[in-house]
Formats: sequence, structure tokens, C-alpha cells
Amino acid sequence: MVLETITVRTEGAVLFADIEAPPMNLLGPELVRDLVSLIQEAEADDTIQVLVFTSADPDYFISHVDLTQIEEYRAEAAKLTGEASIALLFHHLSASRLITIAQIEGRVRAAGSEFVLACDMRFAALESAIFSQFEPAFGLLPGGGGAQHLARLMGRARALEVMLSAQDYDAELAERYGWINRALPAATLGDFVRSLAHRIASFPAAGQVAVKDRVNAITLASAEEFRRDSNRFGEGVRNPEAQSRIRAAMKRGLQTRDAEMALAQILSEPASDSSSSGTRPTWGTPTASITCATPTSGTSI
Amino acid sequence: MVLETITVRTEGAVLFADIEAPPMNLLGPELVRDLVSLIQEAEADDTIQVLVFTSADPDYFISHVDLTQIEEYRAEAAKLTGEASIALLFHHLSASRLITIAQIEGRVRAAGSEFVLACDMRFAALESAIFSQFEPAFGLLPGGGGAQHLARLMGRARALEVMLSAQDYDAELAERYGWINRALPAATLGDFVRSLAHRIASFPAAGQVAVKDRVNAITLASAEEFRRDSNRFGEGVRNPEAQSRIRAAMKRGLQTRDAEMALAQILSEPASDSSSSGTRPTWGTPTASITCATPTSGTSI
Amino acid sequence: MVLETITVRTEGAVLFADIEAPPMNLLGPELVRDLVSLIQEAEADDTIQVLVFTSADPDYFISHVDLTQIEEYRAEAAKLTGEASIALLFHHLSASRLITIAQIEGRVRAAGSEFVLACDMRFAALESAIFSQFEPAFGLLPGGGGAQHLARLMGRARALEVMLSAQDYDAELAERYGWINRALPAATLGDFVRSLAHRIASFPAAGQVAVKDRVNAITLASAEEFRRDSNRFGEGVRNPEAQSRIRAAMKRGLQTRDAEMALAQILSEPASDSSSSGTRPTWGTPTASITCATPTSGTSI
Repeated sequence: MVLETITVRTEGAVLFADIEAPPMNLLGPELVRDLVSLIQEAEADDTIQVLVFTSADPDYFISHVDLTQIEEYRAEAAKLTGEASIALLFHHLSASRLITIAQIEGRVRAAGSEFVLACDMRFAALESAIFSQFEPAFGLLPGGGGAQHLARLMGRARALEVMLSAQDYDAELAERYGWINRALPAATLGDFVRSLAHRIASFPAAGQVAVKDRVNAITLASAEEFRRDSNRFGEGVRNPEAQSRIRAAMKRGLQTRDAEMALAQILSEPASDSSSSGTRPTWGTPTASITCATPTSGTSI
Repeated sequence: MVLETITVRTEGAVLFADIEAPPMNLLGPELVRDLVSLIQEAEADDTIQVLVFTSADPDYFISHVDLTQIEEYRAEAAKLTGEASIALLFHHLSASRLITIAQIEGRVRAAGSEFVLACDMRFAALESAIFSQFEPAFGLLPGGGGAQHLARLMGRARALEVMLSAQDYDAELAERYGWINRALPAATLGDFVRSLAHRIASFPAAGQVAVKDRVNAITLASAEEFRRDSNRFGEGVRNPEAQSRIRAAMKRGLQTRDAEMALAQILSEPASDSSSSGTRPTWGTPTASITCATPTSGTSI
Repeated sequence: MVLETITVRTEGAVLFADIEAPPMNLLGPELVRDLVSLIQEAEADDTIQVLVFTSADPDYFISHVDLTQIEEYRAEAAKLTGEASIALLFHHLSASRLITIAQIEGRVRAAGSEFVLACDMRFAALESAIFSQFEPAFGLLPGGGGAQHLARLMGRARALEVMLSAQDYDAELAERYGWINRALPAATLGDFVRSLAHRIASFPAAGQVAVKDRVNAITLASAEEFRRDSNRFGEGVRNPEAQSRIRAAMKRGLQTRDAEMALAQILSEPASDSSSSGTRPTWGTPTASITCATPTSGTSI
């Protein structure tokens, strides 16, 4: 399997897919096209049981969608599900017979977060992984299932906080909130995920299908709910206020590699935070009672 | 807005409401009346997006309802929703377009806990916040949505433990159980909440309404469920055994400021715990593997 | 009450049931028979409010079902519910008026895990408790409610990880994932549970019934869902691949006391893990940011 933005490697029944879509792993038409091909081919290959996603970019796993090419990437998604929506692509992945694991280093924001939420499991590097579901900063509902997954994983209060704040969350806090399975030191993450993938692949596929079927029946929102959120995002993003907010954020660096290293700071108008007198919330800085002497202090932005 | 038991201050689109109902912030007719006025006025003012609740009493945020004035506070609640029940008032708040944040220092027990559970987010001071849902100590179902929220936030086992034990939980354990978003050092709590409130208020209201709508559809119990629990509490509290238990607890100090500093100890008959040979559970005292050298040790009662 | 595999002791309204079914507390016909008797007698005795389960074996709480006597233990379960299924027995226990607490030292795997998940609360010894839901290693869906409970307690990703990995989880990680209420040092566990049991028993039964009723309505899967999973397990276990996998694992020590001390290592074919180059996942070894200087490091297998 040769793809432009994904490097594929197979070990037994485990397929490793390394995402490399420079300059910042935006989810645009090329990456969506390649994800569709990858999923179709892996699902058609009975020897594959587990699919592991990694990133070739240490700072970005999947940054978010390319906001300048929404029609184009949606058209690519339609080739998998018949519907022009990455929400349905993500839902397809969650319902697949394949077991999917996201090994997260770097940033996953908006549709990047929704992609890893669609995976069956997600493990993140303590030092580098950063999570955000920032669509509400532009007045938008997350359109790729983010609201559906986060509400079920975190409960009402934390899901509202995460989305309404549009903040960056580090891996330690993402673990505490249930956004990810676990945060692990980057030095051990790869071996951990590889070993887990091979262990799962050593067991019969029949049990995996049965377990996913039951767990999805309880925890996965319906395709109709994904479709509705996707439509609401699609309508909202054409709204003049959303367009104005997005253009303003682009002037401050949205969708550029350097500026998005600290995206949370440029999502809101500089003036609108003046009342906060310089004290930004230190998201994910561990509280004294939970953690001590952690090497991750300061990784949050 | 001038209210007897709530001091109101506005900063841009954020309204701060400081609860001050001496001697111990009981939820009686006056405080319910003022909450109704506050919510009505804030909802009618399009310039307000975020409502932050704080307490002027360092030991009590909201202690619980005034058990001697149930009819009276219920009558005040009816002025908001048409129904004589604080459960419906709390449900109204959760469904409101306003984003609500509880900044918790001191005790929130029974209806106090249910009030903060009705808020969209809750952040608590590690050193002073204490949580309890103690109605089952009198043989009663929590009537203001506590069972609905706790079961969904914590899952079956922890929700049963919290309610059936009628114990006090400190902020660190409340965070681990998902009762609150996060526990923060008191010294940073106010700045954190203020900054979060202003950040949210800098984003469009349209996204907030859309996100609350979706998250509530998944996580908020229906008004009918709140109504049923409220009725069951209302019937139960007139039961002779409940009345007898409440009277006995009042003799031991229930509904007095000093005795309620350590309420859990006076909820059950002294004799009935004799078999436990003096070793009380140290609720929220961190276990060795979770926490080390925490400054909060010993704050739990 | 005299039972062969359970030692019963009463203190006021609390009944302590100590499981002792040598050599390794397998859930076979004798233990199921005695559980049925215990539940029937305790439910019929109005003076009993709380039921505490402990184990006389420091290494095994309940290991799992006796795979050589599935028909026999199912026949014993039918004496409680009329249906030949431990799933329905477990569901009965969750719906009972009795408040049940599992005090877990040693291993709870597969149906052992499902038994403690059926209890209302579970507290585990940090040093010795080990959890696993390993049926998928044989291509099987957990048949006693495991998928139902874990999906609701942990959310989609962690429930899938736990079941599909068929790994052992220590008490600290089990607490983080919500599998148990809390992990406590073994030295304090017994006093903690005893004190909690007596405190609950000091409150009126009416409130307990009301609270369980509400919480179960939200969090407990229906008997029909338990029945369906039980049937699927029953059918799956007769499947040739499942039988072959079980026989192979028995040759490696499945259902023997010594080998099951480290069961996870013998569930998959030795060859199938060769690609993992000797680095097994250290499940439950605390990550640096969550824990420091914990005495439990190294207890996981």
C-alpha cells in the first residue's frame, strides 16, 4: 500500500500507519483521501486485525481540518461512506472490525481530537501530547463527533469545560479527564503500544468483534447523531461571525506551524482577555495534591 | 441588581454572584428567592454570558436546605418554573443559555451539592471544600437531582458509596470521583475561575448554546426525572422515621454552624457506630499510591 | 447459616461472607450453590442490611469460573433466578435490597471480576488485588455482565482496552479506570470496609432501596442484556477455536493455582508475542506524573 501522506508498515496482523502530511499534519483532502484508502484496504485484508496510528511529526499528530478546503476534504470522505462528512468517516472507523490504537505525540486539536476519539484506544506521550476541542472559540459545535464522545467519556461538567474553554490540555490532565486511556513517558510509549497491539492481534478476531459490538452499543453515538453534528458544523462555519472569527485567528497565525505551537493564546481576541490581568489558567499544571515532582510541568501551553 | 443574600458584580459579560446568607448559607426562602431573581435578570440581559457563583463564607458555600422551611423555599422556587421544587430550579439552571461556574470554598452538602452539580462546571479549593450527599442518612432520596447527576458522573459504585455512606468527601477525592472538574489550591482558585470565565465570555454565545444543547441531551436527566425525585423527597421527608431522624440530628447540632463543621459525625446515632471500634474511615485521606506529601492531608473530617 | 465454601459472621445488620473454596476460589458448582443460599437467606432476613464479601485466600478472591463444569455451576445458579446463568445471579445481586461491598485482596478475573462488578461497591488492597476480564483471549465475550459494567464505568476506550488486552491490572490502575471505588493499603482495608458497612447499616433501609432503585435505573443494564451476553458466552465457549485455545492455555497452567499467579503471560501462545521483543507492557506500573514513590510498584504481573 503506497500512500502520499501515510507510511504503512505491517508486522503480522498489526498494521502501523505513520501520518506525514507536512507542514503540520492538517486534515486536508490528501490526508482524508489516504485515510479512506488505508481503511478500505485494511478492512479488506483478513490478515490484519489491529491498526496503529502514529505521527512522523513530533509536534503535530493531526492538527485539525484545513479550514480553507472544507468542501474538498468532505468530498474525499464521501468515497468511504457515501456521505460528504468526516464525521461519518470517523463513525465508520469506530464501528469497524479493525481494532484501532492512536499513539499520540504532539498536538491533536478539533478534528484531530475527534480522529483519536474515534480510535478504540489512545495512549499519549506525557511530554508532548496536547489536546483541544476548540471549535466553540469560533461559535461552532464540533462536527466530527467530539461533543458525542467527550460528553460520554468525561461527563457533563468536564466536557463542557473542555469545549467551551477551547483550551489546550496536556496528556496528564487528558488522562485524568478520560480523554485518553493513559499518558506514558515518550521513551516507553512506542514499545508499550507495539506490545499491546501484538498481544491483541494474538487473540481471535471473533471475540474482538463481539466486544466492540457490545461496547459500541452502549457508548458510541449513532451515525444519525454524528450526521446531525456534522451538518450543524457545516452550516455554522458559513455563518458571518464564524467566518470573521476564523479570518481574525488566521491573521494571528491559525493554520501556521509556528503559531499553533501555542494555539490557545491566539483563539480569542487579545483585547477580550485584558480583564484577566495576565494570569492565564495553567491547564494541566498538576495540582499539589495529585502530583509531585512531575517532569511534565511546563509542557502545557 | 440588589439582592439580600447575594452580592452581584459584573465584569464585561461575566456576572459574579457571591452568596452571603448568614449564619451558614442555608438554602432557605430568602436565598431561593434571590437565586430566582438573579437567574431571571441574568437570562434577560443579553450582555451576560457567564455566571460565576462564589461564597462570602469561607466555611460554607451552600450548607443544605433549611429543613424547617421546606414549604416556604419551595414556594419561592415556583416563581421561576411554576413548580414548587428546587429540583426544577436546578434543572432550569442546567438548561439555561448562561454558562455557570461554581467556585467552591467550604461545605456543599445535600441541596448544596445539588446546586453545584446543576452548574456547568465546578472548581473547588483543595484546602477547604467538602462535599456530601447525606439525605440517605435520614432514609431519603436526594430530591434535587443529586442521584441523577452522581450516577452519571461517577458510575454505579461510587455514586452508591457517596450517597449511602452520607460521608464528607474532600476536594481531592471529589476530583478523583468526578464530582467536580478539578481541585485547585485556594490561592490560585479565584484567578483561575475568573480567567476561565472571561475566556469563555470572549467566544460567541451561539457555540455555547449549541454545545450545551448537545451535552445536555446526552448527560442531563429530564425534567420529569427531576420532578419524580423531588416528589419522592417531599413525601419521604414527612415520613415519621425521617422526621425522627432529623429531630435527633438537630439535637446533635444539625443546622447549626459549629456542629456542621463536622456533620458526618452527627448524622448517625452515636451508638450505632460502636462496633467500628473508634476507627472511622478517613475519607479522602489520600492513599499512598495516589498522592504524596500533600498539603491537604487532614482537611477531611 | 452453615455453608461449605463460605464462612458467615454477623455483626448487627452487617453480614460478613468469607469465601474459601480451595485450592484457588474457582467459581464452580459448590461456590455458586453457596452464594445462592447466602443471598436467599440474607434477603429473607430483615435484620440484615449490608453484605460484605471477603476472601480467605490471600492470592485469590474469585479466580474465574471452573471451565470444566460450566453446565454444573449454571444449574446451581438456576436455583436462585430460574435461569441457568450466573449473569442473572449477578444481576439479581445488583438489584437486591441488600447493600453489597466487595473487600478485594488477591485476584479477580473474568467471572470473578464480574462478581465484584455486581456488588454495589468494591475496595481493593493496593498490594495484592489484581483485575482481569480475559475472555476475549479465547475469542469470547464476557458472559456475566463484564462488558455491560465496564463500558458504563470506564467509557469506550478503557473498556475496550481492558477486555481486548486480556491483561492483568493492579489496584492502583483499576482505581484510575473506575473498575473499583478505591485502592487502599491492605493494612487499613479491613477496618475501612467494616466501618463503612456499619455506618451504612446505621441508616434506614428505605433510603437505601430508593437510592439503589434510581442509580440502577441509570447505570445497570437490563436483565435482558445480561441474558443475551450470557447466551453468547455459552454458545461461544463450545466453538472449536475457543475450545482449542482453552485446552492450550490449560496445558500452560490455566486453572492451576501456581500458574495463575501470572495468568496474563500464559493466555496467548508464546510464539505469537515473539515480535514484541521481550518488552511486555507494565500494566499498572504508575506513570511518573501520577504517582511517586509508591510502595505498590512491582506488584503488577
